[in-house]
Amino acid sequence: MDQEGKSFSGYNPRTGSPTSRQFYEASAAEIERAARMAGEAVLPMQHLPAEKIAGFLEAIRSEILGLGDELVQQADEETALGLDRLRGERDRTCNQLKLFADIVREGSWVDARIDTALPDRKPLPRPDIRRMLQPLGPVAVFGASNFPLAFSVAGGDTASAFAAGNPVIVKAHPAHPATSELVAEAIQRAVAKESLPSGTFSLLHGIRPETSIALVTRPEIQAVGFTGSTRAGRALFDAAAKREQPIPVFAEMGSVNPVFLLPGALVERAEATAEALYKSVTLGVGQFCTCPGLAIGMAGGALDQFTAALKKQAEQGAPASMLNPHIARGFSEAFEKAAALPGVETTVSVKAAEEKRTEGRPGVLVAEAETWLQHRELREEIFGPSTIVVRCRSRGDAMRCAEALEGTLTATIHGTAEDLAGYAHLVALLRQKAGRLIFNGYPTGVEVAHAMQHGGPYPSTTDARFTSVGTAAIYRFARPVCFQGFPDSALPPELQNANPRGIWRMVNGQWTKDAVAG
Amino acid sequence: MDQEGKSFSGYNPRTGSPTSRQFYEASAAEIERAARMAGEAVLPMQHLPAEKIAGFLEAIRSEILGLGDELVQQADEETALGLDRLRGERDRTCNQLKLFADIVREGSWVDARIDTALPDRKPLPRPDIRRMLQPLGPVAVFGASNFPLAFSVAGGDTASAFAAGNPVIVKAHPAHPATSELVAEAIQRAVAKESLPSGTFSLLHGIRPETSIALVTRPEIQAVGFTGSTRAGRALFDAAAKREQPIPVFAEMGSVNPVFLLPGALVERAEATAEALYKSVTLGVGQFCTCPGLAIGMAGGALDQFTAALKKQAEQGAPASMLNPHIARGFSEAFEKAAALPGVETTVSVKAAEEKRTEGRPGVLVAEAETWLQHRELREEIFGPSTIVVRCRSRGDAMRCAEALEGTLTATIHGTAEDLAGYAHLVALLRQKAGRLIFNGYPTGVEVAHAMQHGGPYPSTTDARFTSVGTAAIYRFARPVCFQGFPDSALPPELQNANPRGIWRMVNGQWTKDAVAG
Repeated sequence: MDQEGKSFSGYNPRTGSPTSRQFYEASAAEIERAARMAGEAVLPMQHLPAEKIAGFLEAIRSEILGLGDELVQQADEETALGLDRLRGERDRTCNQLKLFADIVREGSWVDARIDTALPDRKPLPRPDIRRMLQPLGPVAVFGASNFPLAFSVAGGDTASAFAAGNPVIVKAHPAHPATSELVAEAIQRAVAKESLPSGTFSLLHGIRPETSIALVTRPEIQAVGFTGSTRAGRALFDAAAKREQPIPVFAEMGSVNPVFLLPGALVERAEATAEALYKSVTLGVGQFCTCPGLAIGMAGGALDQFTAALKKQAEQGAPASMLNPHIARGFSEAFEKAAALPGVETTVSVKAAEEKRTEGRPGVLVAEAETWLQHRELREEIFGPSTIVVRCRSRGDAMRCAEALEGTLTATIHGTAEDLAGYAHLVALLRQKAGRLIFNGYPTGVEVAHAMQHGGPYPSTTDARFTSVGTAAIYRFARPVCFQGFPDSALPPELQNANPRGIWRMVNGQWTKDAVAG
Repeated sequence: MDQEGKSFSGYNPRTGSPTSRQFYEASAAEIERAARMAGEAVLPMQHLPAEKIAGFLEAIRSEILGLGDELVQQADEETALGLDRLRGERDRTCNQLKLFADIVREGSWVDARIDTALPDRKPLPRPDIRRMLQPLGPVAVFGASNFPLAFSVAGGDTASAFAAGNPVIVKAHPAHPATSELVAEAIQRAVAKESLPSGTFSLLHGIRPETSIALVTRPEIQAVGFTGSTRAGRALFDAAAKREQPIPVFAEMGSVNPVFLLPGALVERAEATAEALYKSVTLGVGQFCTCPGLAIGMAGGALDQFTAALKKQAEQGAPASMLNPHIARGFSEAFEKAAALPGVETTVSVKAAEEKRTEGRPGVLVAEAETWLQHRELREEIFGPSTIVVRCRSRGDAMRCAEALEGTLTATIHGTAEDLAGYAHLVALLRQKAGRLIFNGYPTGVEVAHAMQHGGPYPSTTDARFTSVGTAAIYRFARPVCFQGFPDSALPPELQNANPRGIWRMVNGQWTKDAVAG
């Protein structure tokens, strides 16, 4: 099989069989063409009025909704995630597009700043300086297998890159190529309807890592958004850093998402916490970046009660289809490897019910803090529906566990108000380890909101200063440009004296919507 | 000479002799100790009230001012930049510290965002989510040779990293070690006066690249700020990208800073423009990141008049001491190499007046657009007081020159209002190439202001999304942390319902200083 003609098909996780349709690995010429077209779209897109971009995002939303249940059924065939979950994910994807349309239309996201001239300042006059964000350039997006809609072709990376005014090239995840095609066609109809440049959007298929690297190293590409494994995310990051012109990569690569069970909370509600945690661990068959894979508590009767309740839940848990054989095998292998470490008790094993149908069963491990601290392998994410309960013998044990954590998207604390006051030092330490701290809740269910932070210290992401969920995700794909001494009429509307866009601007250090005296 | 005991001295560019005091290359143990202490300062610094950080920045300012003329004289001995320039630079450094103290005290820079709970939302309730910026962690700062105060030990990188609440380790530039020591002692006195952790600040010396790499690769270091050459900046970027945990590097590496002379402007004021451009080219003996090294105009009488006036200025220009022999030699070599390319006319040569005193003389080259486009070497920065005039035969030539530009900190346009309207496409293209566009002005003189952008596409910097000058420089060294479901009393003051800090916050998508209903 040579690269040019190589084809592959999707896979039905329920039947264990490939789907009938064939997809072709993008050739070097196709990658080059998509990148060149994206490069040619940059200048025309730089000048698009905000209303045009907002309309485009809303048109994508309409086109996706217009696909009706065909989209959801196609995604279910390729992922086995279930129709209800996928309808919810489609709605999330559409709401996300609408939210970005709203912030683009409102316009203040461009962080406009104006320092007016001070012609009489001594020893030197100050010139008029005005700054705002503009698009960064073509963005390459790599979707996730576990969210075929919300973190895929028209997901958060694409929506935020478009919102900032960038062309986008998506490399479809090979786990759901037909779903990707449907969404890509919806985007292409929106491009045509809004008369945007043809290079605004392209979709490429591929299963070879070389195809992804070839896209990331095209000189036209100016940024990368990625959701997936640490290995694949790091490979793209490394390729981008080695370019003649290095480019920023935001790779969200999942994490352990520890849950700290403080003593007061466990005494109050050990069983209820175990039941709710179990739901969070097994949501989407554990295939979430925020799946809580670690529960740390103080050894004692309440933690025993919690562990027994978690065991009971897991034992009753039915096997369920995972996304693909690679993920199902990776889950059981990683679980078995952790379970085999000396001192780790297998409370409920994950052995798959029927290998060929890629099913996974919830599992629970238990270990002493000392054991967990000894084995770095136990600190790594096991992607799937399992968690490890870690028993601490002292508050010092809990702090040592927190210190040993790698960077993580989330850290959760269950406690009473007294627990929280007594463990302030733990909370302070977790702020160093995580992007989002959750109190008496669960990390799954990442709200698409202004205040969301879905990003954290490495290895959870490659740059903790950014988020891939929520409206702030747009800042990954924009850069400031400053105009010094320009006449008002030659400035973008966002920076003109009259503030025709009516946006918030920092004028001489003060946030205001007022016009600037001309 | 082994690494541990290696010593070096400063250098007086006027006498061509080493200065008497010896400085010792930081040993591996010293680097490790500084990094460990910085790591230990992270948690205590995370909780510092804004007022404490603002007070610290102001204390540094007072201590620097308290050094009086001793500091300026020491800097002049090591750099030959002149007492007036250095007094101005000291004032700029102190104003910068004050400006960062002001924004820290005001507090809105943390970009606080609050999405309040929606317990009745269907299908799922929305939790309470609150997000703000917090310090990123220990920052390694590498100062520039050409700004011994404003881009050095207490310069913009250090001030912005402190303002965000981070510990800082500065690797002093070996071109001004004694000046660096004086400023470091001033910072250390401020640390003691404000009772901050001893790891808040450290200074290391070194001339070996290995010393810089050893600092950047210490696991405690979480970000890097650098100003200097492309070679050194890229080496630090590469080392940081290869770490087990990659960290962000903002390296500002200088650029060509093209000036486009549009036809109307040249007809109106060819000679005045030449005189003013000459001043900008030779400011600080051309040793500015924003020195305009390229002037592009339409061939014809007006451009000839401009070139003749520039020649006259340069011929009258006195040789002046450059910062050190390495820079002086690099300047004359790069100029001679460019001058030797076929088709390049040497209008005024830069041959140094007296090699051993490291003097440099202003130079002017002239070439046709075709020649300039043929030789990539001509697009690279020649660090020193020279510029190349490029003659275009058509508007197409000018556009091709603009397209061929590498990423640059600034791009300048001289024109009438009619020129600007007629060359809108050129302005649009330059927005893709530069971080700051200047109309009828000069790129030197980088204002420390809210709206300043001192950063641009590679190779001018390693990340065009950030700036190293102006208050926005703080965003290089902070990351968001999100609190979900926390009781009000356990939140940082910036996120509490009552808004006790009185800052601007985005509450449910609206910017406001109002309290949130509890």
